[in-house]
Amino acid sequence: MSDSRPIGVFDSGVGGLTVVAALRRAMPREQILYLGDTARVPYGTKSPRTVERYAGSCHRFLVDRGVKAVVIACNTASANALPGLQTTSPVPVVGAVDPGARSAVEASRTGHIGVIGTLATIRSGAYRRAITARAAAAVVTELACPLLVPLAEEGWIDGSIAEAVAARYLEHVFADDAAIDTLVLGCTHYPLLTGVLTQVARQVSGRDIRVVDSAIAMAGVVGEVLVEARATTTDRGELHCFVTDASRLDELGPRFLGESLTNYELVDL
Amino acid sequence: MSDSRPIGVFDSGVGGLTVVAALRRAMPREQILYLGDTARVPYGTKSPRTVERYAGSCHRFLVDRGVKAVVIACNTASANALPGLQTTSPVPVVGAVDPGARSAVEASRTGHIGVIGTLATIRSGAYRRAITARAAAAVVTELACPLLVPLAEEGWIDGSIAEAVAARYLEHVFADDAAIDTLVLGCTHYPLLTGVLTQVARQVSGRDIRVVDSAIAMAGVVGEVLVEARATTTDRGELHCFVTDASRLDELGPRFLGESLTNYELVDL
Repeated sequence: MSDSRPIGVFDSGVGGLTVVAALRRAMPREQILYLGDTARVPYGTKSPRTVERYAGSCHRFLVDRGVKAVVIACNTASANALPGLQTTSPVPVVGAVDPGARSAVEASRTGHIGVIGTLATIRSGAYRRAITARAAAAVVTELACPLLVPLAEEGWIDGSIAEAVAARYLEHVFADDAAIDTLVLGCTHYPLLTGVLTQVARQVSGRDIRVVDSAIAMAGVVGEVLVEARATTTDRGELHCFVTDASRLDELGPRFLGESLTNYELVDL
Repeated sequence: MSDSRPIGVFDSGVGGLTVVAALRRAMPREQILYLGDTARVPYGTKSPRTVERYAGSCHRFLVDRGVKAVVIACNTASANALPGLQTTSPVPVVGAVDPGARSAVEASRTGHIGVIGTLATIRSGAYRRAITARAAAAVVTELACPLLVPLAEEGWIDGSIAEAVAARYLEHVFADDAAIDTLVLGCTHYPLLTGVLTQVARQVSGRDIRVVDSAIAMAGVVGEVLVEARATTTDRGELHCFVTDASRLDELGPRFLGESLTNYELVDL
């Protein structure tokens, strides 16, 4: 049995292309429809109500195009809108938070886990709930890091400014709990900063810290969901992108996807 | 003659409250309706087409509420949407760019002017056009500075990180033209960073640089427009705010307005 319908992936902008890259590495034959809501990006500074409304329109857009599953690449949208969408969606919906939480629990030896993300993701408490649901004794320290998204988009992913910003945030995290051994990157933009975050976490804590990239964790869960639903394919693995605003795509697309982004279509939601 | 209709001010978010603060200082008796499109903020990273569409809906919202003039506090919206709105609006429309350009031309002795702003403001070339329209021989150097908005919103307005980010940008500006003596803050968020930008501009250039705040320039122009239209008032000077998303208003409102923001209403555009 082969199910050649595409996997739908949506995000508040281009950050979700890091999830698309992980999906394409894990299952290169799957068709992917990506929707980046680049006109309304970012979601991370907005209220739960607004994020839920925007995520709902993205989900509908993909379902209307006949996808076999919807992946919410955006941590903010996952944290705020996943429960609502899971109860109403006609196809399986996979978010960012639970796969990231699972990886973190598996990676941590001390059970002390740090989570960094956008303001809306941290405020939702979704990572804390997902981690303690899997490991009731886990101690979770969360911090919103609003400068990291623009830093990644500006391409200042190493050097003195990136290090100083990372240090300012991570000093807070480890001051709250010095026993943390695992740090979850709870935002699609942060994998671009893995190098500097790993290095600064080591400097601040004085030891190696495991850094969990939710994008890789999500690709694993999507694979499980498709196998379980007998919905895998042996197709040609094409990627088609929709965006609500085309500004900076030529520059930002390759930065997050790891390949040039030539095939995209401008849509209104 | 007194015209008690309010002045309408709109912005992509909360940054425009720096313009409201300048208006209230300059004309404390005017009623002000402020609309912050906080659900779709920022405009500065988006394409001209999207910015024009959003600015159009903000303008309509204020005109429908009976304002006597519309002030586009947002530099990005002014740069991209002012010409279109000025031809169709039933009331006078004042943008950010021309007042800022006028102040810069008046302030500069060398005629070499630097402009910093969002990506969309700089890409539009609106400041360059407005400055050279007033001083044909002026030499204008423009740079987009995407990190400055989140820096201002995070409240990191002084200290080593703010200085390092300001230096990274201003070194570019003065490397392009060492004769610059005037720097235009072409974004409503930047007045919060006036201190660090003034200091770093001096360090980088080796001399005092005049820093032009468009918000103050705009307040002057709005006053002229109202006097010319015989539309001033001696009212009680109330401020009423509408926002499209209420996230972080309690924290950000006072930072930009200089007083607490208690009286606001959530609306959909």
